[in-house]
Amino acid sequence: MAESLENPRSAQKAAAVDRYSDAGVNVAAGNEAIARYRDVLGEWRHPAQLDAIGGFAGVYRLPGESDSALVASTDGVGTKVLIAGELGRYEGVGRDLVHHCINDILVCSATPLFFLDYLAVGKLRPEVAAEIVRSCALACRSHHCALLGGETAEMPGLYARDHFDLAGTIVSMVDVGTLPDPQSVEPGDAIIGLPAVGLHTNGYSLARALIPRAEWDDRFGDGTYADALLAEHPSYYRAVRAIEAVATVKAMAHITGGGLRENVPRTLPRNVKAIFEQQRWSVLPIMRELIHRGGIGVDERYRVFNMGIGYTLIVPLSDAPAALTATPGAKVVGWVEARTGDEPQVVIHPARDDA
Amino acid sequence: MAESLENPRSAQKAAAVDRYSDAGVNVAAGNEAIARYRDVLGEWRHPAQLDAIGGFAGVYRLPGESDSALVASTDGVGTKVLIAGELGRYEGVGRDLVHHCINDILVCSATPLFFLDYLAVGKLRPEVAAEIVRSCALACRSHHCALLGGETAEMPGLYARDHFDLAGTIVSMVDVGTLPDPQSVEPGDAIIGLPAVGLHTNGYSLARALIPRAEWDDRFGDGTYADALLAEHPSYYRAVRAIEAVATVKAMAHITGGGLRENVPRTLPRNVKAIFEQQRWSVLPIMRELIHRGGIGVDERYRVFNMGIGYTLIVPLSDAPAALTATPGAKVVGWVEARTGDEPQVVIHPARDDA
Repeated sequence: MAESLENPRSAQKAAAVDRYSDAGVNVAAGNEAIARYRDVLGEWRHPAQLDAIGGFAGVYRLPGESDSALVASTDGVGTKVLIAGELGRYEGVGRDLVHHCINDILVCSATPLFFLDYLAVGKLRPEVAAEIVRSCALACRSHHCALLGGETAEMPGLYARDHFDLAGTIVSMVDVGTLPDPQSVEPGDAIIGLPAVGLHTNGYSLARALIPRAEWDDRFGDGTYADALLAEHPSYYRAVRAIEAVATVKAMAHITGGGLRENVPRTLPRNVKAIFEQQRWSVLPIMRELIHRGGIGVDERYRVFNMGIGYTLIVPLSDAPAALTATPGAKVVGWVEARTGDEPQVVIHPARDDA
Repeated sequence: MAESLENPRSAQKAAAVDRYSDAGVNVAAGNEAIARYRDVLGEWRHPAQLDAIGGFAGVYRLPGESDSALVASTDGVGTKVLIAGELGRYEGVGRDLVHHCINDILVCSATPLFFLDYLAVGKLRPEVAAEIVRSCALACRSHHCALLGGETAEMPGLYARDHFDLAGTIVSMVDVGTLPDPQSVEPGDAIIGLPAVGLHTNGYSLARALIPRAEWDDRFGDGTYADALLAEHPSYYRAVRAIEAVATVKAMAHITGGGLRENVPRTLPRNVKAIFEQQRWSVLPIMRELIHRGGIGVDERYRVFNMGIGYTLIVPLSDAPAALTATPGAKVVGWVEARTGDEPQVVIHPARDDA
């Protein structure tokens, strides 16, 4: 998704081939929207706007003599909110959103300054709204990030009575000199993966189509389907900082919609490709269940789901041992090879049981 | 709305008394939500967070030796989107949102740096999405503000097929020493009003209840009801800068939901009150029509609608003539008096034909 290098904005990056479209999310339309946005934004660009590394967030150089840049990202939590709302389980909704946003700016190695939320509801129930904002507030606090403001809008006619949507914007800061340099990625580098704990905030329209409401309270693994579907979108902030302290990090990717296939290339130079060996990590049971129910092919599953890897970092092979020691759960999940011509930028060797 | 001084977040500031609640917007719930947010946010506050002047935007002092602060605000355009969507007139939607956000940070006298949008749709139509983003982009460009990023989410099940919601976040900058000082407001100061051109982005749930879809194409004034309802939410950026260049501006207010009654006191010290004389300006025909149709009382109309004043500035009386000369359309609409005890902070003398 090279256009993201110019335009740090996303529209349905989850390029599922078949099943996702059946669930009502039109990936072709998303790609067309991105192309049109590129035209719109190409007409004028503010001189302070720097190249956005992979388009996970926008980068704006501060005025004056400063070598600092602000890094900002807006995101939502997708239709995970429909599951949370249906079950009345709001305690994780704001946390998921804040963590999603933090992981996006983390790709630029930035440090969070503040966050603002946008909560839109069909019928305002103050205790629910407060629980959602509290969920944002706690996640902000644990990252020493100010919850600087927000907007709550009651919009009858646009949202059903018990529905809500939640979006947020994070603003962070980085020294321009310490921005990762993806151009330094070279054959032989190791790809470190940080473990996912669930679907995070992507693929929920498909997941809701495959696991109907009637089953959400049924046992699944150590809990219920609802537990598995609402599992936390984790923050990789501390893990990434720990690795940065001991290793040269050349490029990173937050594995959201689009999966490994579409997110990793966003911060790869064109002359290399990423090789993943799935036997090096575990696919989460909820994903195996969804793949099984939906008959989702190997190609599509690595676009719709994170498949167990929530965040990737590319480091020199010699730095990999130190990086793994610094972060429990981190694994070497693949490596970088030279790429020629039109070869795919991501190659995934499935584990034996996925063949 | 003194709580806004601590918590720069809003929830249905439009405190309509009767008719607005009938239209599905529960003001009591909004006030309760704000009270609960205050509790949540009171538990921890980032040390870089400064007092937000009136709560129109949040203020965050930049790290290091800098005397600069970032000023940020998130907002939406309310159910005006339902009218725009129904009529397929998207060209003003993004502009209205950007202008709303700019006016909010302008209360802190800040200068826009960048903006990010959040567009959520039931069914993604790329040409419509691009028209909305273009509308944001043009408004940003005309304020030399970067459109730094955004998120477009297709969420079947949450939004009806042809519905969308649009929210945005602006980040701006100000020298802490040049922040307006509302504590300097004193009896005898003049209140300058900048003219509104329509409902802007508030009161639309009520307006849609009073003017049904079937009438939107009917003639009204120089155009149609649709034209009047979709009239621009203007940016007051250049007008305010022109006044600041020639006058000492002590306090400002963006007249959004809550009208003059609730927005002006947000930046007034407790020992003064604002007196408005409505005969000094013109109420827009669309508001007269809505007031007539809804039988909306004098008190409520000044809470739900801007009543023709979109932005107010408080200046020393001696600076008022220069301010008026600097900005076409600006009028002295009232003045500041001493307040004792529990007197209302806003007194509005209706014009004769409103009595």
